[in-house]
Amino acid sequence: MPGDTLIASLAAIVGDEHVITVAAEMVPFLGDWRGRYRGAARCIVRPANTAEVAAVVRACSAVGVAMVPQGGNTSHCGASIPDNSGQSVLVSLSRLNRIRDLDVPNNTMTVEAGCVLQEIQAAASREGRLFPLSLAAEGSCQIGGNLSTNAGGVQVLRYGNARELVLGLEVVLPSGEIWNGLRGLRKDNTGYDLKQLFIGAEGTLGIITAAVIKLFPQPNAVATAWLAIASPQDAVTLLGKLQAGFGAGLTACELVSDISLGMVLRHIPEAQAPLERSPWYLLVELSSSGDADALRVQFEDFLGDAMEAALVNDAVIAQSGEQAARLWDLRERISEAQKIEGFSIKHDISVPVSRIGEFLDRAGDALNAAYPGIRIVAFGHVGDGNLHYNQSKPEAGENASFMASQTDVNRIVHDIVHTLGGSISAEHGIGQLKREELQRYKSAIELDMMRAIKQAFDPKGLMNPGKVL
Amino acid sequence: MPGDTLIASLAAIVGDEHVITVAAEMVPFLGDWRGRYRGAARCIVRPANTAEVAAVVRACSAVGVAMVPQGGNTSHCGASIPDNSGQSVLVSLSRLNRIRDLDVPNNTMTVEAGCVLQEIQAAASREGRLFPLSLAAEGSCQIGGNLSTNAGGVQVLRYGNARELVLGLEVVLPSGEIWNGLRGLRKDNTGYDLKQLFIGAEGTLGIITAAVIKLFPQPNAVATAWLAIASPQDAVTLLGKLQAGFGAGLTACELVSDISLGMVLRHIPEAQAPLERSPWYLLVELSSSGDADALRVQFEDFLGDAMEAALVNDAVIAQSGEQAARLWDLRERISEAQKIEGFSIKHDISVPVSRIGEFLDRAGDALNAAYPGIRIVAFGHVGDGNLHYNQSKPEAGENASFMASQTDVNRIVHDIVHTLGGSISAEHGIGQLKREELQRYKSAIELDMMRAIKQAFDPKGLMNPGKVL
Repeated sequence: MPGDTLIASLAAIVGDEHVITVAAEMVPFLGDWRGRYRGAARCIVRPANTAEVAAVVRACSAVGVAMVPQGGNTSHCGASIPDNSGQSVLVSLSRLNRIRDLDVPNNTMTVEAGCVLQEIQAAASREGRLFPLSLAAEGSCQIGGNLSTNAGGVQVLRYGNARELVLGLEVVLPSGEIWNGLRGLRKDNTGYDLKQLFIGAEGTLGIITAAVIKLFPQPNAVATAWLAIASPQDAVTLLGKLQAGFGAGLTACELVSDISLGMVLRHIPEAQAPLERSPWYLLVELSSSGDADALRVQFEDFLGDAMEAALVNDAVIAQSGEQAARLWDLRERISEAQKIEGFSIKHDISVPVSRIGEFLDRAGDALNAAYPGIRIVAFGHVGDGNLHYNQSKPEAGENASFMASQTDVNRIVHDIVHTLGGSISAEHGIGQLKREELQRYKSAIELDMMRAIKQAFDPKGLMNPGKVL
Repeated sequence: MPGDTLIASLAAIVGDEHVITVAAEMVPFLGDWRGRYRGAARCIVRPANTAEVAAVVRACSAVGVAMVPQGGNTSHCGASIPDNSGQSVLVSLSRLNRIRDLDVPNNTMTVEAGCVLQEIQAAASREGRLFPLSLAAEGSCQIGGNLSTNAGGVQVLRYGNARELVLGLEVVLPSGEIWNGLRGLRKDNTGYDLKQLFIGAEGTLGIITAAVIKLFPQPNAVATAWLAIASPQDAVTLLGKLQAGFGAGLTACELVSDISLGMVLRHIPEAQAPLERSPWYLLVELSSSGDADALRVQFEDFLGDAMEAALVNDAVIAQSGEQAARLWDLRERISEAQKIEGFSIKHDISVPVSRIGEFLDRAGDALNAAYPGIRIVAFGHVGDGNLHYNQSKPEAGENASFMASQTDVNRIVHDIVHTLGGSISAEHGIGQLKREELQRYKSAIELDMMRAIKQAFDPKGLMNPGKVL
């Protein structure tokens, strides 16, 4: 069988101990953390460096074997799980985990794909710098995956998506050639911006092996508050006022519905409501390179004015970093709490910020009409127009019947998103999960352009097949 | 002749009065403002809207005629000037000049390609918003050209290049199809980010007809200062301290050499030295959404500390908007003053910020050794590592002999830039001017990828041929 020859070739490249073929040892690589996808592979190969990745790609390409790159395996969409054929090779990037360079005056760091996000944040922090990409999986996700999926997170409002945090890339192309595009330049207008193609391509055009990422000064002061508000429309109005008042000092603005908070309070033992219950809440974080007391006074003044204008009903500013962390916990543990409530249907959507209220009204009405008692768990990044718009089964309902309604619920939500000029995947990507939906909502002309690029870069179709396109 | 038939077809699309064939009337479209390029064309066609652009592209494509898109014709690199064959059709986008939408709560504006940058800035300003793209040609350059060349300018430090200011595009593809990618979303991870390909492609992959651009809150207070400093290395140290102290409040940081200032003082009648002469200067602009007095006090404290640390020798903070404008004038009129000194050789380069000092030392030594008496006019955006590194002939030298040394001077400068991991075109693009240089300094693998994309999008090679690639 050609597999045997290929496995021998791969072992010759990376060493026997880094080619995993024993089924039990392959298990952690072949399923996703949400338990939705389980695939099979010929083997797991764990190259140690870029040259080995390139040799692995050449070996697989030579015999026409598909490759599935995998980082921390934290995808929401099954992007790093192979299909069931058992024919592909899973390429784990975890051993490429060196920080190659940290250039403090240039505010850049050169990192390999397998570096864990949290370790990158820590390395920046040790030099008094901030790498602002921050998301729930940061303790295990890897930067190669973050870039391949153009990860978002809670600080996009201020610092942009992963795409905007990259100055250069090193990529192993489907041909097995290495593209060294590791430039640390803030301006470079010498032709097409090729790195943008690989960022967000979910490994379908090549394997990102290293990147030059941007660092920022650490803010000197951070102030965090929990606001009780009446409606998402008020959240959008407050967002505008916060932007006018604090500019880039507004580093997070998270909307949370009371149903979401209720689930956290019910299931997370240490969780406490910071204020009396309210239909909606806003978690606001301000950062400043100036004085902490001045920031706090400015924030209190702002909140006083907002309460007088009846935009905010009540508010609490965290008195310590620990208290701020507890407020953030209420926001970040919603998914965990919702899971305990039974089967849920999730959407990661975005709309123009100006249409958030309209989206929530229309989608809420449509879902309540179709599924009386459905519980809508809505929260997310209001400044980005990005909502995690999830549904739990009615309290008295059955998991099975709710699961059966998934396609229909997706259709109701995504059709409204599409009508409002929104996106059916704001920050999680497409992977396997939304491939069919993409075909439905993307224009033919846009799909054609994507296919033309895929064909130009990967004519044999061996890079992460069955994902995105 | 097939030209006649084509001209008749174009006239049927846009109307007789919008197809210019009279040589004298074509003149302004066929040469660039620097007087370096003069081309010829079959005709100038001036479509009024996207549908007409698409019909023009289809008509030209059907008979295999090349198209050269042109906006405000302010390119530094001849990107919008056709070759001398007289066979191509120049497509002027100037009549596509509507602002289609301004969504204040979403902080976006939808603009057509032919909108003049300054008019976009003004429209944003009327709504209390800022469109931060700002550059010397803003009174005549058009947004389609700004995006096609990924324009930079003086606020990149804070707001990024043009690329980072775009959320969506509408593009007429080489096939004549219209891609409507006019999404106003801050997060959208549904496949390859196609708009990034057209931004910076200088019209070689299609014609941008409209864009959704990002707006920001207007800052409440701006403080501008002129600093006398000893060296570029001190400028980099100050940059780091300014970033640490003011974060995103640092909106511009421009380095100016004394030779540059000297030319301005000599040739611009109203120019006055703000301080005693010094080897180098830094023009610093801070912005704040807070109180103007507080910003000023903070700035004064910073400058006091920097003077104590001997990083700044002397400084003046502008007392009025008018005075700030005069300081900016000293920076922005360097090119105009240098022109009066005779023939000059220009470079628009970038290096990692950490290597600015090394670049200036090495390039200065090499040029002085090769051309004794050469005058180096260096200025630019220190926060972006982007220098306009221009040379004037020795005072006693002849224009003609200096002109003859251009290729050699380019080689000296660009070789050092390349060695330091820099870019030979930081913000002006490639056009015709640097096409040969691109072949020299880009890796073969990167050029191959660019050619593969060009082939996939424009297999007939009709879109702005002879530019970039």
